[in-house]
Amino acid sequence: MSILYDKVCLIGIGLIGSSMAHAMRQRKLAASIAIHDNDPDARAAAVELGLGDSVHDTVAAAVTDADLTVVCVPSGAVADLAPEIAKYLKPGSTLSDVGSVKQAAVRDLGPSVPDKVHFIPGHPIAGTEYSGPRAGFAELFQGRWCILTPPPGTDAKAVERLQQLWQGMGSQVELMEPGHHDQVLAITSHLPHLIAYTIVGTATGLEEETQREVIKFSASGFRDFTRIAASDPIMWRDIFLNNREAVLEMLGRFTEDLTALQRAIRWGEGEKLQDWFTRTRAIRRSIIDAKQA
Amino acid sequence: MSILYDKVCLIGIGLIGSSMAHAMRQRKLAASIAIHDNDPDARAAAVELGLGDSVHDTVAAAVTDADLTVVCVPSGAVADLAPEIAKYLKPGSTLSDVGSVKQAAVRDLGPSVPDKVHFIPGHPIAGTEYSGPRAGFAELFQGRWCILTPPPGTDAKAVERLQQLWQGMGSQVELMEPGHHDQVLAITSHLPHLIAYTIVGTATGLEEETQREVIKFSASGFRDFTRIAASDPIMWRDIFLNNREAVLEMLGRFTEDLTALQRAIRWGEGEKLQDWFTRTRAIRRSIIDAKQA
Repeated sequence: MSILYDKVCLIGIGLIGSSMAHAMRQRKLAASIAIHDNDPDARAAAVELGLGDSVHDTVAAAVTDADLTVVCVPSGAVADLAPEIAKYLKPGSTLSDVGSVKQAAVRDLGPSVPDKVHFIPGHPIAGTEYSGPRAGFAELFQGRWCILTPPPGTDAKAVERLQQLWQGMGSQVELMEPGHHDQVLAITSHLPHLIAYTIVGTATGLEEETQREVIKFSASGFRDFTRIAASDPIMWRDIFLNNREAVLEMLGRFTEDLTALQRAIRWGEGEKLQDWFTRTRAIRRSIIDAKQA
Repeated sequence: MSILYDKVCLIGIGLIGSSMAHAMRQRKLAASIAIHDNDPDARAAAVELGLGDSVHDTVAAAVTDADLTVVCVPSGAVADLAPEIAKYLKPGSTLSDVGSVKQAAVRDLGPSVPDKVHFIPGHPIAGTEYSGPRAGFAELFQGRWCILTPPPGTDAKAVERLQQLWQGMGSQVELMEPGHHDQVLAITSHLPHLIAYTIVGTATGLEEETQREVIKFSASGFRDFTRIAASDPIMWRDIFLNNREAVLEMLGRFTEDLTALQRAIRWGEGEKLQDWFTRTRAIRRSIIDAKQA
């Protein structure tokens, strides 16, 4: 790959920020990487791991002269940071983010963006149950989707360059309208996480002996939920608060369906259960065919 | 390992039966294995794969003279088969099963068991989303738990021998009371499967374009649910019908918790969400510590 940006600035160096740093360095996509994080421990880790060419304790020093600035902080922290970041954005540069709710990015970052800056929100659909600067690795985005949600009229060349960056880090890129993104992610990501968090929490409410057995015999299905329910609590709090409407809508559909299956179990309606379970098998096959399994 | 039973009879040669056959042959735990399945295709596959020393089209021929008979059919089929199997059980031999609901095994098999036969229900906590005789493999039980639920007063030597068989196939064995087994599995296995089936079904109810995107972006959480929701529909229909009370009890607790989280999202109670999500992380760590991750 060739260098796409002279200076990239990463604001926030958690799992996603640090993985971007690793990937950009490995593939030589940026001439230099400047990092800011408001947590001194995260900055120290960034220095120790050599994640950037410079690590700054102010937003100003990191953003100044950057050709691409990517906001990688928990989405709840974006609104407060936006005006400070905006002050130092270079005309002609690009501002992006990696948040899981794109309407929130538009709401929180959008109003601060200066006229001559290209604003292109983004969302890499990749993650692990680990968080922080030490959790990052260069291959996190390999073979995964990254969705960009540029507002109508955004400079096509700026979009193309950001697209090349994500492709350079191993992703496939898709452009989408922010509201549609938030709906699709509500069902594919936000609702599954909410449900996994719920059931794992339900298990912690059982009497102590049963809890020990839940852990012991977790391989029977429960285990898969615990991995999801170990995801970063602050990030997920913000996702649910920011994508409230779409999540509540999908949750409504889910509980209707769950109630129907509950009723079928109570009344012994075996055929209804078997039909439902047969239908869901087909979806798994589609995912395997789509090479996302 | 040394031979534990001269003749083992497997009734039903799906994922579990065929995996037992592979494991017993590989570890030389049985002098001979006789197989019956009421499905001619399954019998043909058993012959083709060399799963047993003999494959029979009648229960009588398979069970006669067996030292251990293991019922490996979907639990809904057990009650009808029980009297036929019982007719041919050798005095002093052991009758077991591999069903996921142990009170149902006691209910369906128990009344038919002749006086001089040792009846020891069992449940290997192992599986994949694949089913049928071609899905089996010798390592399925490796490092996984097998729960035995012998009725009070069962011959200790017979229990010990069956325990050795499962250990020989790679499992750790635990003895448990059938009702307690069914409660523990309701939360660790049955409820997770019900929820996974539900959400994957909910996704199939969305408009077609969104469905395609759900598949495309499944890596964001949904994918893990589809693997669970691809499990054998008939087996799972029977599990929910047979463990109705424990499943409905756990489902009640789950929906209470889900409603509380739903309310917290609607009212923007971030602290409540974050507290809950932090608590669930600890469970994941316990599972990693227990080496079940």
